[in-house]
Amino acid sequence: MNNRVTELFGIEYPIIAGGMVWCSGWRLTAAVSEAGGLGLLGSGSMTPEVLREQICKVKNATRKPFGVNVPLMKPEAAALMDVIAEEGVKIVFTSAGSPKKWTSWLHERGIKVAHVVASSLFAKKCEDAGVDAVVAEGFEAGGHNGKEETTTLCLIPAVRRATTLPLIAAGGIATGHAMLAVQALGAEGVQIGTLFALTQESSAHEAFKQRCLNLQEGDTKLLLRKLSPTRLVKGGFYSAIEEAENRGASPEELLQIIGVGKSKAGIFEGDVDAGELEIGQIASLFQGTAPQSVATVFQQLLSEYREAKNLLA
Amino acid sequence: MNNRVTELFGIEYPIIAGGMVWCSGWRLTAAVSEAGGLGLLGSGSMTPEVLREQICKVKNATRKPFGVNVPLMKPEAAALMDVIAEEGVKIVFTSAGSPKKWTSWLHERGIKVAHVVASSLFAKKCEDAGVDAVVAEGFEAGGHNGKEETTTLCLIPAVRRATTLPLIAAGGIATGHAMLAVQALGAEGVQIGTLFALTQESSAHEAFKQRCLNLQEGDTKLLLRKLSPTRLVKGGFYSAIEEAENRGASPEELLQIIGVGKSKAGIFEGDVDAGELEIGQIASLFQGTAPQSVATVFQQLLSEYREAKNLLA
Repeated sequence: MNNRVTELFGIEYPIIAGGMVWCSGWRLTAAVSEAGGLGLLGSGSMTPEVLREQICKVKNATRKPFGVNVPLMKPEAAALMDVIAEEGVKIVFTSAGSPKKWTSWLHERGIKVAHVVASSLFAKKCEDAGVDAVVAEGFEAGGHNGKEETTTLCLIPAVRRATTLPLIAAGGIATGHAMLAVQALGAEGVQIGTLFALTQESSAHEAFKQRCLNLQEGDTKLLLRKLSPTRLVKGGFYSAIEEAENRGASPEELLQIIGVGKSKAGIFEGDVDAGELEIGQIASLFQGTAPQSVATVFQQLLSEYREAKNLLA
Repeated sequence: MNNRVTELFGIEYPIIAGGMVWCSGWRLTAAVSEAGGLGLLGSGSMTPEVLREQICKVKNATRKPFGVNVPLMKPEAAALMDVIAEEGVKIVFTSAGSPKKWTSWLHERGIKVAHVVASSLFAKKCEDAGVDAVVAEGFEAGGHNGKEETTTLCLIPAVRRATTLPLIAAGGIATGHAMLAVQALGAEGVQIGTLFALTQESSAHEAFKQRCLNLQEGDTKLLLRKLSPTRLVKGGFYSAIEEAENRGASPEELLQIIGVGKSKAGIFEGDVDAGELEIGQIASLFQGTAPQSVATVFQQLLSEYREAKNLLA
């Protein structure tokens, strides 16, 4: 499984754990890196000081490569970047913003940069901006999502044609079979969110994990198209937004319903009714299971991948 | 490429052309079957007499197996089924209804039955109803779509776990690479719509083909969730519906905007502004190309499939 992605990051398997708000703390990050993948801290839910503490904890738990995801629309993005550089982190995944904004700054400090996109147009912008790898994330992914609503199956071939960059597929990938499937489409690695968000090492609340491990097909939907398209899990928060959208609510009214702190309440504090729950569509594949360790998840992914490869041979 | 799907239908390659309204007439159907796949007439846009005529024309053009797609919600479904039986058609794909309704009737007449689903729940119902194969169609497909909005990448593994039936994947598949990708997920065949709708042999209007071969990513979207979710191409018809939905229009008002005969106007008569245009999300991958012959499409699919397989080996 050695390729441009494993070489770029110095990892064993081209398996990256998405840096997810309220899920991707030091335990998950270190466990993924220890297992041979690339763990990413999710700084989207961290203050600069919390990020610094989390980075130190990862360093104490593993000597293997790890990185930080930074959503560029965050007001504290600059302060987070300073912490990352000061603490000597060598890999940053940027998202939700222009790849031009930070790539040179990070490269000057010897930091590798991957950027998350949802279209081949933005993938080309990544190439122009000089990023080291592109993550192409499809419609099935949890949380914030592209306006084009392009699914992973349609997105990966388009991004593959648009750029020569190392290509990491994301959205809907939670089995070794899916790893092989996106490889057939031209991807060289995978970024996996949902599956890792629901592991024992994820910092998400137990009630959130339980809810997400008991979803039926259709229990997550993309809403909030008038603001920023977001895949949400059905529940009280979801219903309030859906009802408002069905009667034509304005962006302002939707912002009021969203309020503040709802994703923390839902994912980190376990208020699965009033809180905002974000998970990928693929969660329903694991209906009725219990949270597993990251090590077990890796074993499973790798054995499924080999099995799928043998079946195709 | 021999497997349960090729054996079931007596075809060379497990490649099925979806039976699409206003696209899948006798020319497309015969060309696909002649190329070694399974052509399907799209009876959704045919009266019983037109269907009879089209079946006769297919029989004159090829001696290879072909079938008919019947959307079960059509008022004339029973009359169409009578024509199918009378004309000795041996394969029927049913959709948009319960698989229990016609399966026994068709089996008693020696006709093989596949049913199209968008969830593993309905796939199980297919198995209970005794259908011979299931087509699992994801969110990226054109036209009518499942309420769950499950993408092909998430749907195929779920349906694979839910049933032991021969499994045909649909939605977002337009390259040999994607054929291999869905095979890795457990599919044994593919049903391809978009790519065949835009061939020279498709009965769709030239202006429709031109419009669909010049789409950007994001130029098709799923709308009409309050009635029956449908993937539409951007244009005048699309904008009228989107504007109404954004202000919270009722199902009744949406029905009025839709009116009658709009898909015929858009797809068959080439009114690409006021007409209803239905195509899959994957169309944008072929931006700027011209309609190709079915024979060329088959060559391309098969060579891409072999190429992708070699790359994975």
